[in-house]
Amino acid sequence: MSEQIAGYDFGAVPRSPVTMDELRRLEAALEFTTQDREMLSRARSVIADHAEGLVDGWRAIIGAHDFLSEWFVGPEGKPDDAYKAAVKKRFVQWVVDLVTRPFDQAWLDYQHEIGLRHTPTRKNQTDGAETPLLVPLRYLLAFIAPVALAVRPLLQTAGFAKEEIDLIHAAWTKAVILSVTLWSAPYVRDGLW
Amino acid sequence: MSEQIAGYDFGAVPRSPVTMDELRRLEAALEFTTQDREMLSRARSVIADHAEGLVDGWRAIIGAHDFLSEWFVGPEGKPDDAYKAAVKKRFVQWVVDLVTRPFDQAWLDYQHEIGLRHTPTRKNQTDGAETPLLVPLRYLLAFIAPVALAVRPLLQTAGFAKEEIDLIHAAWTKAVILSVTLWSAPYVRDGLW
Repeated sequence: MSEQIAGYDFGAVPRSPVTMDELRRLEAALEFTTQDREMLSRARSVIADHAEGLVDGWRAIIGAHDFLSEWFVGPEGKPDDAYKAAVKKRFVQWVVDLVTRPFDQAWLDYQHEIGLRHTPTRKNQTDGAETPLLVPLRYLLAFIAPVALAVRPLLQTAGFAKEEIDLIHAAWTKAVILSVTLWSAPYVRDGLW
Repeated sequence: MSEQIAGYDFGAVPRSPVTMDELRRLEAALEFTTQDREMLSRARSVIADHAEGLVDGWRAIIGAHDFLSEWFVGPEGKPDDAYKAAVKKRFVQWVVDLVTRPFDQAWLDYQHEIGLRHTPTRKNQTDGAETPLLVPLRYLLAFIAPVALAVRPLLQTAGFAKEEIDLIHAAWTKAVILSVTLWSAPYVRDGLW
């Protein structure tokens, strides 16, 4: 299935400058444990099955604000719909990956690639687009909130027990923060990340 | 009370380079609304009364990992206890401020100051300490997770209704992410924040 996603180069991107040891330290700082991994597994099918709906919800927030949607605008001042559609498929796959893939070297490498694709180093290249060369880091960080919070109603609808919902939601929140933390590396001044 | 906190210079720091308009945009990206403000007010006394306990919990995570506690170590290779104690009081006050202060110009300015105090520009200066000149951004970001998640058990113990707990916890999570997003600005390459 993932072969059908243009530009989804998981497993075929350069090595992240972040080491696996550093990834494990970040997991420890987040308190991401084997229980969290187990909780993500438990919610895997629910979250993966609803990944497109989740992304549609986040896209609606972006669409509601010029200062968020302007990063998808082409040189003629109109939204680049082909770019938006291409990015969306990879955004959906990121959700699926977050609940299905181990946080191993390939996953680590791909998080760095995702970060780069939001910066002038690599934005637009994957899709041959001509949108602005950046999504500012502040919006990636702020967007942790809607991405982390959107999963709880989904879990409630899916009928998980209350205690399970809390644990799954915590695991999801940690995974999102870990991923976006890794995306932030290319934005940061030398030696400060 | 806050006059007793050494180095707590709220209201007496330079203007943040981030504008109030930008702060409002970040709030919109986070979906931080008047309802969230109301929810923080509702939990104000519970969270503020337990702020020191919350910070103790986060400090325990830091203390459990050399790669987190090393930023508090003095030139002799031992933890700088005076520095730790001074920083702790301000950390507690940050929790209190997050649920009591409006997100206005003074608050915005102080978030930038807090960010700077984690970077070589300003770390150690407030307390005349000689610890490493940095807390790496990746650990500030990763720490959003324990800081966001620790409040839910507190709200449960305090006897809030389930729906209220979800709403207050969401508001707290957004507020934490907003604050740390503002802290990140001094770490980021020119033009990429």
